Amino acid sequence: MKATRSNMSMFKASVPVFEIGLNALSALLDKAQAYAEAKSIDPTVLLTERLFPDMFPFTRQVQIACDQAKNGSARLAGIDPPPFEDNEKTIAELKARIAKTLAFLKTIEASKIDGAAQREITIPLGPKKGHMKGADYLHHFLLPNFYFHATTAYDILRHSGVEIGKQDFIGAIPMAVS
Amino acid sequence: MKATRSNMSMFKASVPVFEIGLNALSALLDKAQAYAEAKSIDPTVLLTERLFPDMFPFTRQVQIACDQAKNGSARLAGIDPPPFEDNEKTIAELKARIAKTLAFLKTIEASKIDGAAQREITIPLGPKKGHMKGADYLHHFLLPNFYFHATTAYDILRHSGVEIGKQDFIGAIPMAVS
Repeated sequence: MKATRSNMSMFKASVPVFEIGLNALSALLDKAQAYAEAKSIDPTVLLTERLFPDMFPFTRQVQIACDQAKNGSARLAGIDPPPFEDNEKTIAELKARIAKTLAFLKTIEASKIDGAAQREITIPLGPKKGHMKGADYLHHFLLPNFYFHATTAYDILRHSGVEIGKQDFIGAIPMAVS
Repeated sequence: MKATRSNMSMFKASVPVFEIGLNALSALLDKAQAYAEAKSIDPTVLLTERLFPDMFPFTRQVQIACDQAKNGSARLAGIDPPPFEDNEKTIAELKARIAKTLAFLKTIEASKIDGAAQREITIPLGPKKGHMKGADYLHHFLLPNFYFHATTAYDILRHSGVEIGKQDFIGAIPMAVS
């Protein structure tokens, strides 16, 4: 059986994945907010928490997850992404950044990403540049980077005692249960 | 431009992704071993470390990452995966489990997974069953679950002081640098 656009495409393997993951991350922020309120914890403590002194804190993990989704999808579509400042100080502001990211993803035409499998993608790497075919970029750079930061954000909340489970991370996926 | 088998396929989006991720995980285990030796830490302390008392420890995260790759790829290919016991007690044994998983992945015919995009995949969910189209299963269940456990394994080592960075997690990807 030959894979066709109707069931396997660069777009379906990217934008809807980010949408589900970012919506799940937004819901994790709601649980973090409720936890901070229930335990009388200053939410800033959660936002600045990290797993090791030289690791990025929670807020930065969320910002990078958003930017991987935004900039990576734009790179695949061959368009310029809107720049976002990294200035979020509250859970509400992080949720707003996720919402802005989701709104941008909605503007991307599926056909632009579907045409990117063989296109060369260029990635800034300090003074050098990385070059990958679009499909390789999606499978081996963009998705692992997105999940790395999204999972680490989850792990920081979990390590901080927020009552969440893997299902909260996986989010609302297209699965029928019987 | 139409996506074709030559540049975008269910197989390329799954088995090579797991191979790169599992090889990276195996190299992380080497760094954990070296760290334990340098700091005179019993490696068992690292293997049983967890980020919160009711989370799975490091060893279980590695076992599950292996099983997602093994069982998920088998499910997509429509074949029965070999069962692995969960009895690893040392870093060497965990590396052997990763090697066994990689050896199994090598036996899977690409064409069997490439034909799975529209096939219904059934997943055991306790007493119930989940049903997804193959492409949805890969994008929204298998990859996020694999990365969730692989990243959490990384995060546990990082939290334990092992000197690793994101590049160690991303692994040997097909990127040209200039």
